[in-house]
Amino acid sequence: MHFLNMLSCDNPLTLCAMDVSFIQSLILFCSLIWGLGAQSPENKTIPNIIIMLMDDMGWGDLGIFGQPSKETPNLDSMAAQGMLFPNFYSANPLCSPSRASLLTGRLPVRNGFYTTNGHARNAYTPQEIVGGISKDEILLPQVLKKKGYINKIIGKWHLGHRPQHLPLERGFDEWFGAPNCHFGPYNNSDRPNIPVYKNSQMVGRYYEEFRIDKKTGESNLTQIYLKEGLDFIYHQAMARQPFFLYWAADATHAPVYASKHFLGKSQRGRYGDAVLEMDYSVGQILDSLHVLGIDKDTFVFFTSDNGAAVMSGPKQSGSNGPFLCGKETTFEGGMREPAIAWWPGRIPAGTVSQQLGTVMDLFSTSLSLAGLNVPDDRAIDGLDLNPVLHNNTLINRPIFYYRGNEMMAVRVGPYKAHYWTWSNSWEEFNKGIDFCPGQEVAGVTTHIQKEHTMQPIIFHLGRDPGEKYPISVVTKEYQEALSQITPVVDKHKQDLVPGEPQLNMCDMAVMNWAPPGCEQLRKCLKAPKSQPWKCDWPH
Amino acid sequence: MHFLNMLSCDNPLTLCAMDVSFIQSLILFCSLIWGLGAQSPENKTIPNIIIMLMDDMGWGDLGIFGQPSKETPNLDSMAAQGMLFPNFYSANPLCSPSRASLLTGRLPVRNGFYTTNGHARNAYTPQEIVGGISKDEILLPQVLKKKGYINKIIGKWHLGHRPQHLPLERGFDEWFGAPNCHFGPYNNSDRPNIPVYKNSQMVGRYYEEFRIDKKTGESNLTQIYLKEGLDFIYHQAMARQPFFLYWAADATHAPVYASKHFLGKSQRGRYGDAVLEMDYSVGQILDSLHVLGIDKDTFVFFTSDNGAAVMSGPKQSGSNGPFLCGKETTFEGGMREPAIAWWPGRIPAGTVSQQLGTVMDLFSTSLSLAGLNVPDDRAIDGLDLNPVLHNNTLINRPIFYYRGNEMMAVRVGPYKAHYWTWSNSWEEFNKGIDFCPGQEVAGVTTHIQKEHTMQPIIFHLGRDPGEKYPISVVTKEYQEALSQITPVVDKHKQDLVPGEPQLNMCDMAVMNWAPPGCEQLRKCLKAPKSQPWKCDWPH
Repeated sequence: MHFLNMLSCDNPLTLCAMDVSFIQSLILFCSLIWGLGAQSPENKTIPNIIIMLMDDMGWGDLGIFGQPSKETPNLDSMAAQGMLFPNFYSANPLCSPSRASLLTGRLPVRNGFYTTNGHARNAYTPQEIVGGISKDEILLPQVLKKKGYINKIIGKWHLGHRPQHLPLERGFDEWFGAPNCHFGPYNNSDRPNIPVYKNSQMVGRYYEEFRIDKKTGESNLTQIYLKEGLDFIYHQAMARQPFFLYWAADATHAPVYASKHFLGKSQRGRYGDAVLEMDYSVGQILDSLHVLGIDKDTFVFFTSDNGAAVMSGPKQSGSNGPFLCGKETTFEGGMREPAIAWWPGRIPAGTVSQQLGTVMDLFSTSLSLAGLNVPDDRAIDGLDLNPVLHNNTLINRPIFYYRGNEMMAVRVGPYKAHYWTWSNSWEEFNKGIDFCPGQEVAGVTTHIQKEHTMQPIIFHLGRDPGEKYPISVVTKEYQEALSQITPVVDKHKQDLVPGEPQLNMCDMAVMNWAPPGCEQLRKCLKAPKSQPWKCDWPH
Repeated sequence: MHFLNMLSCDNPLTLCAMDVSFIQSLILFCSLIWGLGAQSPENKTIPNIIIMLMDDMGWGDLGIFGQPSKETPNLDSMAAQGMLFPNFYSANPLCSPSRASLLTGRLPVRNGFYTTNGHARNAYTPQEIVGGISKDEILLPQVLKKKGYINKIIGKWHLGHRPQHLPLERGFDEWFGAPNCHFGPYNNSDRPNIPVYKNSQMVGRYYEEFRIDKKTGESNLTQIYLKEGLDFIYHQAMARQPFFLYWAADATHAPVYASKHFLGKSQRGRYGDAVLEMDYSVGQILDSLHVLGIDKDTFVFFTSDNGAAVMSGPKQSGSNGPFLCGKETTFEGGMREPAIAWWPGRIPAGTVSQQLGTVMDLFSTSLSLAGLNVPDDRAIDGLDLNPVLHNNTLINRPIFYYRGNEMMAVRVGPYKAHYWTWSNSWEEFNKGIDFCPGQEVAGVTTHIQKEHTMQPIIFHLGRDPGEKYPISVVTKEYQEALSQITPVVDKHKQDLVPGEPQLNMCDMAVMNWAPPGCEQLRKCLKAPKSQPWKCDWPH
């Protein structure tokens, strides 16, 4: 029997939030009875791995990263007990490619999560996308299985929603969540609502069985995801089973939501309420590791998939702190992420690492922790961060900022060189879509795709994290920085073998009309006739 | 004998930095020998007070407030041991008025530190200013003397440099520092270099006896100020003498400087080097309180005089984090300040207060700590923060944002209403003087003085700390916010009795030609004939 099922907290879920001390007591009690307590299972040498990936959360949303409201006590504590990474990056300024990179350890341009329909266009996996993660890619949970890990994803998948692309086909043993964003509600006639899956079967749809009230912002989804997470951890701990939990809750993605208990509680409005609930959930998960006595056997990493979606306005988006622009752009606000590593007794508490890191490093680092090698038949962009985590070593490595098929910028040490600049088109901008609200930097946040390959715009991100003061090209500093950067870019371009682009084709027929499991639920919908087209990616 | 004089660390001062553990051992040794140790003096009920006021340091310059470089370990520790104030304000976006307000507990428009030469102009105390702090104002150290405090100011005074305005005339017992900014070097013929005072006598001039190398950024002034501070604290502790130390080092004001040991050590360039040295100095001062056993008897407050001077560019200025614009403006970047209160055993460690505070509160709070009342014959803008410090109470109070003689904006709860907006004139802006680099917000960062008194621009600073999304005037939220704000503004304007403006007149004859003490040093210069004029304040 699932211990959480013993609690009558399905409805209202606010009770769940209130009952956590009871849950903790219960876990402790069970642990003592069953003789686990704080002991590590014998001979256990490989740690559990938990990756908590936020959706559109910005660097500046955490107290520890300077959010004025300071409403993330659990994340701030996590940092105080672990290692903070102020220079950590997504692999892309957009959700799907960044998530594909996290699980493959490879840049989107290599793993295929990009488009060639236009130059430097952001592409992702809406319902009408035909593609998904290529069968030729090797995903983290697939490799972890070699060492007996049980792998679960909770929340948003976003690597393709057609049957062959779903998590259980790609190394995960369990899933609770959805394949696409929680956009909607849709009418189910020209567009179906997004299904929610339990493992390989749908169990309902957003806005139907899984309510999101767009008017009030109320939804208990985060509480469900939390419960799913705690339950999974508990069972693996009881079974002394090494596990990988990929906890990808999405409440901070527009339309943002929170459960009743958290609504109206933050100083920041609805977005802040969602952050409060995420922070609370992180705290609950870490607490459960303590109580189950597996905290010293579990590596936990917290980060986000891309920068805050500042184009959505202050009620639906977060903060990128001092950084320029946000999601969709290759300025720092689009790709600099909050990041915390936590592993009591192994990662020194209260440390700050200035290592340049990316979500792709979680692939390499996790495999290294599990005693596994990364695939040797392909280029891997992820770095094994273990020397950083254990000895606060600094490893020299560049960061590449891609938009679709174009390397827009590169960071080497404190210097960032922009080879292409673009926020979005004048056409979109004039419609009110603003990726850089209140942050126009002349010649930098351009509304045409501007090429600077002959003379990149260079910033010193140490003294100018906001990318507001380009270094003059006539200075010695510019020339020296460029001379460091050029060979890195040349080598990267020389070695690069772009993957087959997976995000070029769209078709209304591939949408979530009749996901597996719809029959039992009588929720199958009729698909229209297939009429594929080249997807239009406007920015 | 001054214990610090026993150390041969006058030159090179880098040795000082290295020898601190020796100094600490020495202090500890002396303390033990002399029987002070960790004991509090008997019957001592009033605490020592230390106010550390930074110059042009921004909210975003501290790790704890989100500086990506995380190079302020001592300040971050201070916050971890004390109370952090993310909503703390200067009294003005400019140095002199803000400092006058700190010491009088009154807005510049009341204490006279403003100008009526133009509408909404920032005025300060350059050498040619005729005025200074009015004799009718009551300064914090003057009141503290009633309870037997010994008062010292170290660093920048900035409340007038003519003899009648100097610190020892206004309640301070000791001074080491300068009356004006460390601008220069000057030629001493049409403009004298700024004198450095020890108490009531000059002991040299900047760029002469007190070197600042503008090319390399090297100066040992911060080390001198640190030494002065440690020495003063030590002697008062030995004498069991309650003291007030106003430590106003100015290395973070352009031209920024640092001593040799710190130059080139930060990730942020020269400005970051100056911050490193400030952070180090704060750590040394707090450590000395511990070692002398008076930490539990000493209230320490750290803050800055105004926002980072972002118009000076990234090599000479700091960061305002997520806030709009900087020094000289009444946007958040001009007046939101880093702020930390520290008093081990009295202020709960690791707390965050969302109280709206201002530097003027340091006047009222300090007097309350000393068991003194604020003057009852005049309006006092400062709030006694003791209930906040001890019980994390929240006191409802507005923040007024003045520029010269005009109330530009007001904050009530999370809402800020702008009644006037102005960054600077087109004329200045077109010359390249930019108070909001990379941060133009249409209709907000205006280059003309724009009146909005009939319909203020309102922001919600919780979800929009960067003042980028004005709340639509047709919303219920706007109307409700305005209905809260209007009576606060009406009352303020009704009760306001502006003080006599002290910063209207300039005269080359009043400059620092022949400060007291110049005769002995043979450093008196000849003043030109008096030709007063109404000072021109361009912004």
